[in-house]
Amino acid sequence: MLGLMQQHPLLISSMITFADRHHGGTEIVSATVEGALAKTGAKHRYTYREAHIRAKRLANALIGLGIAPSDRVGTLAWNGYRHFELYFGVSGMGAILHTINPRLFPDQISWIANHAEDKVLFFDLSFVGLVEKLAPHLNCKAYVLMTDEAHMPAQSSLPNLLCYETLLAAASPDYAWPVFDENTASSMCYTSGTTGNPKGALYSHRSTVLHVYGAAMPDALCLSSRDAVMPVVPMFHANAWSLAYACPAVGAKLVLPGMSLDGKSVYELMESEKVTFSAGVPTVWLGLLQHVDGNGLRFSSLNRTVIGGSACPPAIINRFKDQYNVDVLHAWGMTEMSPLGTVGTLKAKHDGLPIEKQRETLYKQGHAIFGVDMKIVDDTGAELPWDGKAFGDLHVQGPWVTSGYYKRDGETVLIDGWFPTGDVATIDPDGYMQITDRSKDVIKSGGEWISSIDIENLAMSHPAVAEAACIAMAHPKWDERPLLVVVKKAGQEISRDEMLAFFGGKIAKWWIPDDVVFVNELPHTATGKLQKLKLREQFKGHVPA
Amino acid sequence: MLGLMQQHPLLISSMITFADRHHGGTEIVSATVEGALAKTGAKHRYTYREAHIRAKRLANALIGLGIAPSDRVGTLAWNGYRHFELYFGVSGMGAILHTINPRLFPDQISWIANHAEDKVLFFDLSFVGLVEKLAPHLNCKAYVLMTDEAHMPAQSSLPNLLCYETLLAAASPDYAWPVFDENTASSMCYTSGTTGNPKGALYSHRSTVLHVYGAAMPDALCLSSRDAVMPVVPMFHANAWSLAYACPAVGAKLVLPGMSLDGKSVYELMESEKVTFSAGVPTVWLGLLQHVDGNGLRFSSLNRTVIGGSACPPAIINRFKDQYNVDVLHAWGMTEMSPLGTVGTLKAKHDGLPIEKQRETLYKQGHAIFGVDMKIVDDTGAELPWDGKAFGDLHVQGPWVTSGYYKRDGETVLIDGWFPTGDVATIDPDGYMQITDRSKDVIKSGGEWISSIDIENLAMSHPAVAEAACIAMAHPKWDERPLLVVVKKAGQEISRDEMLAFFGGKIAKWWIPDDVVFVNELPHTATGKLQKLKLREQFKGHVPA
Repeated sequence: MLGLMQQHPLLISSMITFADRHHGGTEIVSATVEGALAKTGAKHRYTYREAHIRAKRLANALIGLGIAPSDRVGTLAWNGYRHFELYFGVSGMGAILHTINPRLFPDQISWIANHAEDKVLFFDLSFVGLVEKLAPHLNCKAYVLMTDEAHMPAQSSLPNLLCYETLLAAASPDYAWPVFDENTASSMCYTSGTTGNPKGALYSHRSTVLHVYGAAMPDALCLSSRDAVMPVVPMFHANAWSLAYACPAVGAKLVLPGMSLDGKSVYELMESEKVTFSAGVPTVWLGLLQHVDGNGLRFSSLNRTVIGGSACPPAIINRFKDQYNVDVLHAWGMTEMSPLGTVGTLKAKHDGLPIEKQRETLYKQGHAIFGVDMKIVDDTGAELPWDGKAFGDLHVQGPWVTSGYYKRDGETVLIDGWFPTGDVATIDPDGYMQITDRSKDVIKSGGEWISSIDIENLAMSHPAVAEAACIAMAHPKWDERPLLVVVKKAGQEISRDEMLAFFGGKIAKWWIPDDVVFVNELPHTATGKLQKLKLREQFKGHVPA
Repeated sequence: MLGLMQQHPLLISSMITFADRHHGGTEIVSATVEGALAKTGAKHRYTYREAHIRAKRLANALIGLGIAPSDRVGTLAWNGYRHFELYFGVSGMGAILHTINPRLFPDQISWIANHAEDKVLFFDLSFVGLVEKLAPHLNCKAYVLMTDEAHMPAQSSLPNLLCYETLLAAASPDYAWPVFDENTASSMCYTSGTTGNPKGALYSHRSTVLHVYGAAMPDALCLSSRDAVMPVVPMFHANAWSLAYACPAVGAKLVLPGMSLDGKSVYELMESEKVTFSAGVPTVWLGLLQHVDGNGLRFSSLNRTVIGGSACPPAIINRFKDQYNVDVLHAWGMTEMSPLGTVGTLKAKHDGLPIEKQRETLYKQGHAIFGVDMKIVDDTGAELPWDGKAFGDLHVQGPWVTSGYYKRDGETVLIDGWFPTGDVATIDPDGYMQITDRSKDVIKSGGEWISSIDIENLAMSHPAVAEAACIAMAHPKWDERPLLVVVKKAGQEISRDEMLAFFGGKIAKWWIPDDVVFVNELPHTATGKLQKLKLREQFKGHVPA
């Protein structure tokens, strides 16, 4: 027997419609990216009601450009109001929004745009040069510059170059969002590993709306109509961690920082727009804290920020709380998870614990949002205990988790219905997860696992160490043993034996690396990830001293 | 093109599974309803992990009783841990949980149980006498008393009377929750109007899970794993406003008050279990405030409470805030809405407003939760403006709103896809809704509507008035005109002309009733609702003085 409740598919258009009807006067404020204006710090501001009208104009304009349901529409854009309109105009009319990371190498961008078969590419003014270089390798039928006529370039090599504002002005605001299967693809985002071609996560309307509900919950990002939210995390990166969707769904003010993500710009925008909540990767917050510290400033409205993308150093969490009374939510997720999986909030049981005990919990990546399940497994796939000590491959499950990648039909991605994250983690009895390694970086010594991240963090806590990487080297008896590769701080000295002695008493004896080598720099990817695979190749034949 | 995200139907079993895995150590504490124990204030406590095991035993026991998917299982029970187990054991295995209000007249209960075709009835010890009286009129194949062997009655007229604990002890805890269509019916609740037979709202797994996401949001009930939640609203009333589901889904501690809902019992349980959040109808809070006021007590953990079911008098909202710093969330919903529609939280724009301005907003029933849309329409179905003044029939829409009633297939319930709530309301430009009347009670004078509730509230603010009802009387020129029916306070006097003069300057002149009559008492239903229909009949031929 079926229930007798109304059938409304979960659609992305419902979020902008809701914001219009129930929070129509709430603002979206954007730092402008347009030439001289950008330099003056000029801001664009309008309401959800106005954004909705423009999203509908955009939908009509897309139809005019020949975009049909399920066609891919690419973007190369910063966090701004026109990008926001694309989030709803493109997906709302049934096409697929493909946000591209402009920081990738041009070859990767054209590979991705061609693999996705983007029909039209929307891009910000700052990417004109890049897109002109890419265009000969792309198959787009139109290029839309996200600006007004006044800022269009006098000349350009781009074929069929259109002006966003001109397109919108010519399109009717009368448009009824179509109603269709909630499992329809809504948007896509490619994830680039350190090896192989990028892989496209293909989100659905259902997964996106359910993820918004999960993200807004008090134990996740706790988003409400009392918030002014500034996503520093880019809208080209895993849907800005849901914020471009979740803010209209809860009626939060949205503050979009454009391209200037230095500490001063971020701080001034936060203060002038009374931002209560922000989101980004650790490096952004380092810059912000430096600016605030260096100038004796305070946060007058910011009360919490979510940090993810990579593990957040405890020092950042503590500085935010101790010096500025800002709560850091330490979060973990993946492009393949829409992206949120866990968020580090305390439970009632932590009330009254000494602050240091509370912090031990907050340094972890948090507990799962309702909708996400997770487990850790050993090499044989057997589930490991949640004791905070055992660590294994982290697998996840849920309605906003990837089941496969775009155009890789033959590939088996899931293991028994679970998505293997490629991370290695512990989970404690209260469900708090902590990443200890990437699966491919973990060191397997005598059948037991050693966390390369733990060893690197420890090494980096030595005052003479600027950066450290711990990799596996082959060993005749133990299969693998850890090798530590260190970059010294300028003007600092430390010897191999001093480094090794530093580990004494701090980790299990058999975790201590067999050797230390010093190098001038470590290899990184375009997005700043340590290339351990390259290091492994480099030190393949290394023989310990 | 479909998205490539995992397919997991939204099922009620996922909430107890989630609580077990991610908040397994969090407690459910119940006031016991068992004889001598109840009098001592003894409490039962266990964890979500243990509750999950017992819910799985219950599922096996139900199968043993011959319960098949979609069979209805009735309950007559207070808020307690065994009722909680039924919420998950019954729906989780695919059957339909039918919670029955034991405060209805016995005739109504047997009509409802028979209409639902309940196969088994689970009931608390306090209802043995009631169920013995009902049984000859029912078609249940078993009666399960929710207690242990020690508390089973020595003798009973009930055929096939079983003991809950004995059933569970005999059932295996090994059970895998089945996976099925999320639109499958999960539970039902009858709503009794003032006329006609009760009507059954039939919830689905999908509607229930989506409603939980909506209910947990910061602008709704803001539920988290830091909360200890006490639903005073009964679990037989619209799913205890989602709390029996939402608490496991967010990992909140659940405190179930059993049958003692007097101020002292509620207060002592709140304090001993460090309750942070509670929920109930206005009368419960009046009793609680009386106890707390009268004994010079304080709330040491309670920080907010949701009040709904009927409009909450501003005085209660203010007393909670001014005297005890407890925020009242004024909410509105219906059994047909799972039940939450709107919740009264402030938006960022209210920050810094004078407290009296903020309160004007908080006295309204709140703004819509994402997932619910609403509109007000006039007699012709045309949508009315959101100006806070125009009032019309309130219609709602959303995935947790009823589309029809159980076994009333031929009936058209929706109007253009919207559910007519039977309430009359205003909506202001910020989306805050305020109920002004029931549709059937509104007075239509010269084509314009007059709010009977506004007039009654005003009349009741006169010190000599105990209760007042404003009804329509026929009028040759204006179609209808208001008549005020008043019960005086004991020992107080007020004349017709004094009463009418009291309205002067307080409402529009044409809203002032044409006449006032004084009576000794007003007619009410079994659940305490004013029976205006009866009054209308009584004063059908009334001629104004």
